[in-house]
Amino acid sequence: MRTKEEWMDLALNLAEATIGQTSPNPSVGAVVVKNGELLGIGTHLKAGEAHAEVHAIAQAGEKAKGAEVYVTLEPCAHYGKTPPCAELLVKSKVKKVYIACLDPNPKVAGKGVKILTEAGIEVEIGIGELRAQRINQHFFHNQNKKRPFITLKAATTLDGKTATVTGDSKWITSEKAREDVHKERHKHDAILVGRRTIEKDNPSLTTRLAQGGKSPIRIILDTELTIQDDYNVLKNDTNTWIICGKQADKASFQEKYPHIKVIQMATAQIILSDLMEILAEEKIQSIYVEGGATIHRSFLEENLVDECHWYIAPKLLGGQDARSVIGGDSPTWMKSALDLTFTQIEQIGEDLKITATLKEEG
Amino acid sequence: MRTKEEWMDLALNLAEATIGQTSPNPSVGAVVVKNGELLGIGTHLKAGEAHAEVHAIAQAGEKAKGAEVYVTLEPCAHYGKTPPCAELLVKSKVKKVYIACLDPNPKVAGKGVKILTEAGIEVEIGIGELRAQRINQHFFHNQNKKRPFITLKAATTLDGKTATVTGDSKWITSEKAREDVHKERHKHDAILVGRRTIEKDNPSLTTRLAQGGKSPIRIILDTELTIQDDYNVLKNDTNTWIICGKQADKASFQEKYPHIKVIQMATAQIILSDLMEILAEEKIQSIYVEGGATIHRSFLEENLVDECHWYIAPKLLGGQDARSVIGGDSPTWMKSALDLTFTQIEQIGEDLKITATLKEEG
Repeated sequence: MRTKEEWMDLALNLAEATIGQTSPNPSVGAVVVKNGELLGIGTHLKAGEAHAEVHAIAQAGEKAKGAEVYVTLEPCAHYGKTPPCAELLVKSKVKKVYIACLDPNPKVAGKGVKILTEAGIEVEIGIGELRAQRINQHFFHNQNKKRPFITLKAATTLDGKTATVTGDSKWITSEKAREDVHKERHKHDAILVGRRTIEKDNPSLTTRLAQGGKSPIRIILDTELTIQDDYNVLKNDTNTWIICGKQADKASFQEKYPHIKVIQMATAQIILSDLMEILAEEKIQSIYVEGGATIHRSFLEENLVDECHWYIAPKLLGGQDARSVIGGDSPTWMKSALDLTFTQIEQIGEDLKITATLKEEG
Repeated sequence: MRTKEEWMDLALNLAEATIGQTSPNPSVGAVVVKNGELLGIGTHLKAGEAHAEVHAIAQAGEKAKGAEVYVTLEPCAHYGKTPPCAELLVKSKVKKVYIACLDPNPKVAGKGVKILTEAGIEVEIGIGELRAQRINQHFFHNQNKKRPFITLKAATTLDGKTATVTGDSKWITSEKAREDVHKERHKHDAILVGRRTIEKDNPSLTTRLAQGGKSPIRIILDTELTIQDDYNVLKNDTNTWIICGKQADKASFQEKYPHIKVIQMATAQIILSDLMEILAEEKIQSIYVEGGATIHRSFLEENLVDECHWYIAPKLLGGQDARSVIGGDSPTWMKSALDLTFTQIEQIGEDLKITATLKEEG
């Protein structure tokens, strides 16, 4: 017979399979079991559609009575687009509910559990908690910090270069690493670059995987709104949002590109923290920042980076004048460097992927 | 009863324990076994002293007759500072000899084996071969390429910086990574830097480990021989060799610093490939190149780097003008970058150590 950890793993696998497609909702999986027999499975597929518990209980039908339910996130207690799942579990007369982690919103956490326990249902919390939190890393972050989770992505040679002095960067990393970048794009709500990156490389910024995948919203920072011509991001194949300052001529631009959403800031310059507030209101929970150097510098300076994804290729370029990842001026002292923690090291093809988080300032 | 692989592992452990102290000789271990009983062990401690087999056979004494011998490198067949070990094994009437790898010198390889087999001793070659070659990586390289094995060492932030714009670099990596650097110094015959590194940082370039360790010969490149003052490397605590061009005033320098060896090149500039020939004649088998950026560039340009040791600290410094590992001008195209292979990735404390070798040009 499978252990409770194994059943929760199954529920977590179901949740994990939907990362990138449920935003602004979390990815959740649920499993209904009785006497070691699997009776129902469910996963939340898309915001506005049924929650994981609804699918799993529906499949179990009458057999749900007296069953155990494994769910990766605390069942909701409020009437949203769907009725509260905690009440559904009560009505279904399940015997016990295993919950991987509580609702990340402190105002809501424990309310689903309370409905269950007051109805006499046993509750056990914490199996698979870390993995459950990791699966909904972006969602949890938004609930707590009220702004998008920001991933800074860079691809460099071993000597830290992103391009030659002429700007040539094709290609630093191998195809496998670039495929991993597309997987990350799928997992994020938006991708963000500066106008100069568009003018230099004319990227599509879409998710292109053999097996499909969701393209993130393309966010271009262009203070003066001077971008034009036939750049790929101006095409109508997926959503593009352009952010500009208050003096930009939005009307003329929209006349030419009516399918593009232009967000005009209240200030002459784009203040990133203000922009993050606007994007949070627009339900953007995660942003994949793909540079260039000036954009990277600004996000770091405003303390807006939550995770770094660094792809390092087995190459040495050389040259003090070859391009660095982070622009601007060097600090005077090494001790001014930002401190990180390496959280994951992976070999992807012949390249290395380093995941790092910023240390909280002491 | 222990397997033959386990006995060879013991011999390899004995060899490994002497890495750094046997140059210009290889590190070798030997084990004598009969009926599963260990009769003798040996390791070569220092050039000019007894070989591993001599120690192991001496300990086994009369019991060596009919025994099996595990040795990490083919027993020598020539009269050097000691008589040939292959003949010692014949005289001792051992039954079988396991050899991890053959002599790296193609002119000598197989000669020791021939002496054994012609005397009716069974020989099996290849158990633990890769590990045996790795243990004597520097020695094998010298036998094959007739020049020292060159390790390029760098310590950078995640964004590839070795110092701020002002040159401040204290400290990039953690104490544990710096301790690993001292272990590497112990394993190399020489350490090499340019004059500017001395003038900037005034390093001692010695091996400083709590448990002791051999300091490498300090090699300073100083074309004009203008180094002076009370720099640590000019002290008489360990050997320093200074390399200068032919126009330098060697006599005056030697008057002031008689304890320092000055190698004057036949050319005005120091041509690295010429220097490597000289150092090979001086029995320098391995060089640990600790920079700076100009020195790194020169070694890479002359195709003289065998392995890269890159320590990457979890820090972001930022700034196009912060210092890079490799100096000079950037190439025009990314495809001009040198191709490497990452051979080992280790986490050392909070830092990362990447070992890489250069791909042969296709």
